[in-house]
Amino acid sequence: MLAAARARFAEDGFTATTIRRVAADAGVDASLVMQFFRSKNELFAAVMSVPADALTRFSAAFEGADDGLGERVVRAFLEVWEEDVRSSQPLMAMLRGALANDQANEQLRGFLQERLLVDALASRSADADLTLRVGVVSSMLVGLVVGRGVVGVPTLTGAEREQLIALVGPAVQSVLVPTPSTVHDKGADR
Amino acid sequence: MLAAARARFAEDGFTATTIRRVAADAGVDASLVMQFFRSKNELFAAVMSVPADALTRFSAAFEGADDGLGERVVRAFLEVWEEDVRSSQPLMAMLRGALANDQANEQLRGFLQERLLVDALASRSADADLTLRVGVVSSMLVGLVVGRGVVGVPTLTGAEREQLIALVGPAVQSVLVPTPSTVHDKGADR
Repeated sequence: MLAAARARFAEDGFTATTIRRVAADAGVDASLVMQFFRSKNELFAAVMSVPADALTRFSAAFEGADDGLGERVVRAFLEVWEEDVRSSQPLMAMLRGALANDQANEQLRGFLQERLLVDALASRSADADLTLRVGVVSSMLVGLVVGRGVVGVPTLTGAEREQLIALVGPAVQSVLVPTPSTVHDKGADR
Repeated sequence: MLAAARARFAEDGFTATTIRRVAADAGVDASLVMQFFRSKNELFAAVMSVPADALTRFSAAFEGADDGLGERVVRAFLEVWEEDVRSSQPLMAMLRGALANDQANEQLRGFLQERLLVDALASRSADADLTLRVGVVSSMLVGLVVGRGVVGVPTLTGAEREQLIALVGPAVQSVLVPTPSTVHDKGADR
């Protein structure tokens, strides 16, 4: 039931998905879905549990040397969103839903702000400046994934993932690990 | 009527907006709206006409020296999306709609791929590589605007625009004007 709902929310978005359709996909009666989840909102909330290993992969990308950090983050991000269906479906459902539905919006906000940031920063000393930098990177990478996967901008869908990583990696690096002259003089802290 | 529809689509998104509500906002009868636009889809299409000067501002940002290009583009983008209500409302409506509705998706795709890219690149010799780079930058900046304006990630909404420009400008610069070592050796073309 959850798997059917996950696939349906990811494909059709929150608004167009119906309990009836999810039930049909799962081969059960709609009343059974209602009995378990009570409402489309609660079903959505249950579906939104992003697999823990997706978050683990993000935080792993942030671990280690500053050198190559941008590339590691972009690679982990594109892999989790585009390759691994189990993680990309709930993320994509959350994203589509966020623009149509306040509950999903709340969830995406929570996810971006807390789970992603906290996990990403667990291995680094997180000051407000670094939190902002990770927030900027996350939202820019979500934009890239949306342009490629949801909107389907031909230029972006036509690009190889490695080509994107080569292009975006240095940009992400420059946001995450600013050189002293980039933002303000922080001394030689890279 | 168009102004009322524009405001309503931008605020509520495509799905939640009704002809009845737009008519009420405009102080006219719903049948009059239907007479002019026939359907919510056609009303949406009419609303989607992004003001020409928004596109002019994007292309102006791309003109001139490579030096500071990233900062100019980020600044123009944030100003058009966040400051100028006349341009930000149709853009935001298009974006919200794109994730709930195929027609809007088509429009956003067309906008990102053709209008934005063609305009942006009118002043530069556009090869496939540059088109990809502009596409990547556009989608990343849309992601930033979504994180800030639609999802409302606290870290991002709390940041000053100038702070974001300082942070993101160099990243955009690195995508648009890759140094020879960044992607592949193109010689000293910056």
